[in-house]
Amino acid sequence: MSKESALIAALRALAPHPAARGLQDDCAVLDFGGETMILTHDMMVEGVHWLPGQDMADVAWKLVAANLSDLAAKGAEPIGVLLGFTLGEDDTRFLHGLNEALTAFAVPLLGGDTVSANGPRSLGLTALGRATCRPVPDRRGASPGDTLWLTGPVGAAMLGFEALRDKTDASSTAFRRPLPRLAEGRALAPIVTAMMDVSDGLLIDAARMAQASAITFAINSTNVPFPASLPPARQDEAMRWGDDYELLFTLPPGTNPPIPAHHIGTASLPSGSPIIVDGAVPHNNLGYMHD
Amino acid sequence: MSKESALIAALRALAPHPAARGLQDDCAVLDFGGETMILTHDMMVEGVHWLPGQDMADVAWKLVAANLSDLAAKGAEPIGVLLGFTLGEDDTRFLHGLNEALTAFAVPLLGGDTVSANGPRSLGLTALGRATCRPVPDRRGASPGDTLWLTGPVGAAMLGFEALRDKTDASSTAFRRPLPRLAEGRALAPIVTAMMDVSDGLLIDAARMAQASAITFAINSTNVPFPASLPPARQDEAMRWGDDYELLFTLPPGTNPPIPAHHIGTASLPSGSPIIVDGAVPHNNLGYMHD
Repeated sequence: MSKESALIAALRALAPHPAARGLQDDCAVLDFGGETMILTHDMMVEGVHWLPGQDMADVAWKLVAANLSDLAAKGAEPIGVLLGFTLGEDDTRFLHGLNEALTAFAVPLLGGDTVSANGPRSLGLTALGRATCRPVPDRRGASPGDTLWLTGPVGAAMLGFEALRDKTDASSTAFRRPLPRLAEGRALAPIVTAMMDVSDGLLIDAARMAQASAITFAINSTNVPFPASLPPARQDEAMRWGDDYELLFTLPPGTNPPIPAHHIGTASLPSGSPIIVDGAVPHNNLGYMHD
Repeated sequence: MSKESALIAALRALAPHPAARGLQDDCAVLDFGGETMILTHDMMVEGVHWLPGQDMADVAWKLVAANLSDLAAKGAEPIGVLLGFTLGEDDTRFLHGLNEALTAFAVPLLGGDTVSANGPRSLGLTALGRATCRPVPDRRGASPGDTLWLTGPVGAAMLGFEALRDKTDASSTAFRRPLPRLAEGRALAPIVTAMMDVSDGLLIDAARMAQASAITFAINSTNVPFPASLPPARQDEAMRWGDDYELLFTLPPGTNPPIPAHHIGTASLPSGSPIIVDGAVPHNNLGYMHD
């Protein structure tokens, strides 16, 4: 999920106050005990991040997966999570899904807190990881001439969301049970110039990487992977939908990725727009703006 | 705040599943690199943990202080926090108080997430600390014959809460701006046999330490420190009120604490009750049971 938040912007405005030092757009990177720890904290709110009536087991899975995706983008190996949980009526399902996710990703629950509350429930997860590669990749390192890559299709979560919302026969797995690209992130971390996960949408996240790196990406949509079941007319929409948790990364010119990935664009000197898609500046509303 | 939660109990019931391994009642203790990290995550919910209309600067302070108090009880040195924040209408006040607390305790904000939600707001804070002493103190180490100590008065937060709620001239500072006993915790960690912070009330927290240590504490209430302004008739109540964030700890027989503290009791072999106060088993409802 996005950390381009109003809070962080406000805290940045406090600079040079110590409260703002070390604040990052995505994960925190902390040297500790001779190693480097990666930390991320994401929240999910009922009615905002999950559908009313959605199986809480899927919500638990997604909460874990979304946080681990942030670690994947750092090439980090997960070492544990802390959970902040608002008690509700279907906690057994939540526990079941939490258990499934922690087992699937081999991550222990280290601790947490629970509260009772009326109104929409709020969940928070802090995930910790060990950096496997230093310097730790971030979104700021892309240079003109670098190639832009994506690990897998975008739009599958959108189709899954619609299947779930409309109760159709199509698969909703991609929306309900995303898979953080942990192995891919570790394989890529030593060679990328920039990397992030695509949580809010390909175009908006590519634009963020471009802005952080002070370059412009030219993206060729014919090279962007989409699910086979996506109607071609919806490809533009799929590039603006989030929740797919693929990795977006750049490589120096002439370098090939060590894992399967799709070469979707190239970095150049900054022009007026952070991204150019098929030769044109895309219209506004690039993706989901969390706040 | 308490972690004696329904969730953690439920997760324990999953054991021997890996999800439950390493789960602790209070902080997580994590060996990382060549050092030991202490992690805690506490939540606060509008209408439960703070009064409607309360200054959000005070709420921010308390969120930070309560988490750092957990670190203090481990003798840990704080190294940073991650914030999960529900946006609202008085975020500027929250930021102001957050800034004050982080400055006062010299702790950086490392990252976090913000969300929008309707209904009562929920806040989460993850605090990280570096253990200054190993083994890290916990609540399980008290033995028969050990002496029981408290760093400072209980009941001040209760009086402060009432001053705030009833808008009297009395000071509400103890409730609004608690001070985690970080220096005291570090000084005590190498010599205590057990230690915890008193967040839910002296009697309930002493009972938890007794149960975790499989001993009984005999507490002499005449040695328990209270604020000067507390009517003597309210001493029993003050021992059942939380939010004072003093440290409760045990020492081997004959050892004196290196900081000012009050000798309030003694551990003995377990009897029928985890605590005996002035020779009698206290009535039920020992303190605030967070869930």
